[in-house]
Amino acid sequence: MLKPLLSLTGGIIATLAVSALHAKPLSDEDLSVAEVLRDRALESSDAYSIVESLTVEVGPRPAGSAGDQRAVAWAQEKMKELGFDRVYTEQIEVPRWNRGHAHARVVSPFPQPLIVTSLGYSVGTPEGGLTAEIVEFPDVEALMKAPARKVKGKIAFINKRMERTRTGEGYGPVVGGRSKGMRAAAEKGAAALMIRSVGTDSDRFAHTGMMYIEGVQDPVPALALSAPDANLLEAMLKRGKPVQVKLDVHNQRLEDGPSFNVVGEITGRENPEEVMIIGAHLDSWDEGTGALDDGAGVGVVLETARMIAELPQRPRRTLRVVLFGAEEIGLVGAKQYVEAHQDELDNIIAVSESDFGAGKIWRFDTRLPDSRFDIADQMMQLLAPLGIERGNNKSSGGPDSSVFVARGVPAFGLYQDGTDYFDYHHTPNDTLDKVDPENLKQNVAAWVVMSFLATEMEGDLGRVPTEH
Amino acid sequence: MLKPLLSLTGGIIATLAVSALHAKPLSDEDLSVAEVLRDRALESSDAYSIVESLTVEVGPRPAGSAGDQRAVAWAQEKMKELGFDRVYTEQIEVPRWNRGHAHARVVSPFPQPLIVTSLGYSVGTPEGGLTAEIVEFPDVEALMKAPARKVKGKIAFINKRMERTRTGEGYGPVVGGRSKGMRAAAEKGAAALMIRSVGTDSDRFAHTGMMYIEGVQDPVPALALSAPDANLLEAMLKRGKPVQVKLDVHNQRLEDGPSFNVVGEITGRENPEEVMIIGAHLDSWDEGTGALDDGAGVGVVLETARMIAELPQRPRRTLRVVLFGAEEIGLVGAKQYVEAHQDELDNIIAVSESDFGAGKIWRFDTRLPDSRFDIADQMMQLLAPLGIERGNNKSSGGPDSSVFVARGVPAFGLYQDGTDYFDYHHTPNDTLDKVDPENLKQNVAAWVVMSFLATEMEGDLGRVPTEH
Repeated sequence: MLKPLLSLTGGIIATLAVSALHAKPLSDEDLSVAEVLRDRALESSDAYSIVESLTVEVGPRPAGSAGDQRAVAWAQEKMKELGFDRVYTEQIEVPRWNRGHAHARVVSPFPQPLIVTSLGYSVGTPEGGLTAEIVEFPDVEALMKAPARKVKGKIAFINKRMERTRTGEGYGPVVGGRSKGMRAAAEKGAAALMIRSVGTDSDRFAHTGMMYIEGVQDPVPALALSAPDANLLEAMLKRGKPVQVKLDVHNQRLEDGPSFNVVGEITGRENPEEVMIIGAHLDSWDEGTGALDDGAGVGVVLETARMIAELPQRPRRTLRVVLFGAEEIGLVGAKQYVEAHQDELDNIIAVSESDFGAGKIWRFDTRLPDSRFDIADQMMQLLAPLGIERGNNKSSGGPDSSVFVARGVPAFGLYQDGTDYFDYHHTPNDTLDKVDPENLKQNVAAWVVMSFLATEMEGDLGRVPTEH
Repeated sequence: MLKPLLSLTGGIIATLAVSALHAKPLSDEDLSVAEVLRDRALESSDAYSIVESLTVEVGPRPAGSAGDQRAVAWAQEKMKELGFDRVYTEQIEVPRWNRGHAHARVVSPFPQPLIVTSLGYSVGTPEGGLTAEIVEFPDVEALMKAPARKVKGKIAFINKRMERTRTGEGYGPVVGGRSKGMRAAAEKGAAALMIRSVGTDSDRFAHTGMMYIEGVQDPVPALALSAPDANLLEAMLKRGKPVQVKLDVHNQRLEDGPSFNVVGEITGRENPEEVMIIGAHLDSWDEGTGALDDGAGVGVVLETARMIAELPQRPRRTLRVVLFGAEEIGLVGAKQYVEAHQDELDNIIAVSESDFGAGKIWRFDTRLPDSRFDIADQMMQLLAPLGIERGNNKSSGGPDSSVFVARGVPAFGLYQDGTDYFDYHHTPNDTLDKVDPENLKQNVAAWVVMSFLATEMEGDLGRVPTEH
């Protein structure tokens, strides 16, 4: 009964006291229960069924769309069905946009069509389309440095390849082309921007995604080319003649509108005001069914909570599942959540999000005060048999979690194998068949260990300074 | 100097005489030359460069289209550049068709888009589209047997999966849904036909292809669904409520027009009137760049002939490369070729086509009189080190070759590994990056052995009765 020692403001001091008293914060009984949950998870395909339900019954659900509204209704329904104690939504405000068509065609010297897609929130071409010469850049930095006369009136083509890695670290060096390319092109008077898709596949799918549009005076159409089409354009340019491309793009920017973070809780039996948040994002891009991004995460965290809800007693503190809205367009739901819950942040003991597909979890990262590595060590006893190694203490906890982490909230990161994640990311090809049911079982097994122990353990995790 | 014995009409008898005289029809010198050619081919990426040139500089080339015209010009140019002795075209007449758009969307109970493509020569929907309920069939036979009342006014959905095999033999059992499904649906008063794509991938590409349209009184729109979309529809139907789909399809049937078989010859030094035909087809479907189907074949046979043209002397008889037109829409070029060349057929000693992608060749099939297996055995001495095993004597020689084979012309078949061929077949994803440059070298190595020895050998191959 050490809990009364913990006050909201004195959490850190109390935690240190607790941890000094108990060399091992997790009891043998807690570990036994976690082990049973883990092994049960490895036998269950329930998480897969949840992903199936979301992709079949809802499908694409971009922020603020009709699909998003159906997803919000689906999520509440599903949480009730799974036995959550409390289910509610929190409204957020999101910018809205409708994708129309995007046609591209080489006009000369080698007429043939190119497969492209609009980047998120791209404007369209003038009625009837536009035709301009291609000017190629190896990366966005080269475009930024180029003299305006080289770019003016042309279609700037950023042709940078992404490296395939297990960690997904190939993403960082190329994503700037997508996020900042249009602004750079517009500032130099380009007619449009085209980028080689940010992706690792060699399939004829273009990868959409977010870009900075705020404050861009005269935005221009911004498109991604599939990798084979970028190869094609590259091969044409190598032949030395000017390459003219015609673009015909139509999209529609709508007024801002409502979306929702959908929240479901398993209420704590002793300290319900203390909250472990596990999250995923409910929105998806519009061209796939959002199976890997982030239907899989939704399935993992909902099933994790369901398993804990099924135990004979509620865990010590509250497990809160947050299905964030509008992640894809700039962590909008998470940012608005943290703003709205400022007063509660000290009560959020930790946060973690599943948002990197459905690969096997291979690494357990954390963001804990050094003094609480003992908890991670104990969790590792149950995670290691799942093929998971101990990683670093620099976890962001996932994209939406990073907003919490920036405020000092500790985080856990169950890192998935992302070797093929960027083959499908933000393409029409992000569909259920890409989710491996066996991997998903392993994911839930790891998540239920981490989530149960974090909600059940004695003591607190303190805060982690953001400069950590 | 046994050649004078051979007359056109007495070819078979003369051949038997020759083969009785020579236990080994291929001389050691011939085999040595073939071996040098083979090993040179393994070091050269010239075939790949040809495929690159065709896909980059021409791209899609459906029969009778502007792309087809550019391909015909490209092929003649390329043959001249490669040193052929004679380059010419033979005009054929082809039915023409323009693909427009094909949009499909589940209207209820779970609104979301479906990725589809029109089957070749499909009609469109009425202006504004059509909405109808889905009725599912396990295969085309079940649709054919169904009472009309079950189908009338509905969208018939043939949902049969294709098996992945090295030989491609999974194609036969499913392709009937594509070729005969629309006719069956139309006869029963269906609103439209949808089929699960004839393919082995699990990507969001629908596979187009040919279907029977002749004599269908009131054709209806015919579409293929990508595999993930067929899964989606299947999952919706399993939930038991009626599934309504809206189709909006526009295509355009044009008047018949000209296309061409493009022919290039390396003229024989002793018996120029005797001809070994090696072929590929120049046309492609319209959505990819026709790299595997059949750019790879074009590259293989052109490079094979180029290598033989580079030898110090011309081979004994003529090597004729025929790039057939309009293969995809029913072997139109090959059929018209055989009609036009009826009088010459006895002079065509054998035929072979490369039209099964760019996988490694693993089997050498033939269609020879039993008495000439000795030639295949000798060829095998040089093919076996390439990882090629001796196959059967039932080869069709490839799709276009089969038209010759039906008239008794012997055939060789260098069988490629087709394990992933139907992942890309007839999709937008049939692009250059799917061609493995190393496999292509091995292909040319095998082709140059077979082609050189067939044009150089003493004696004839006779005829093979079609009931063989």
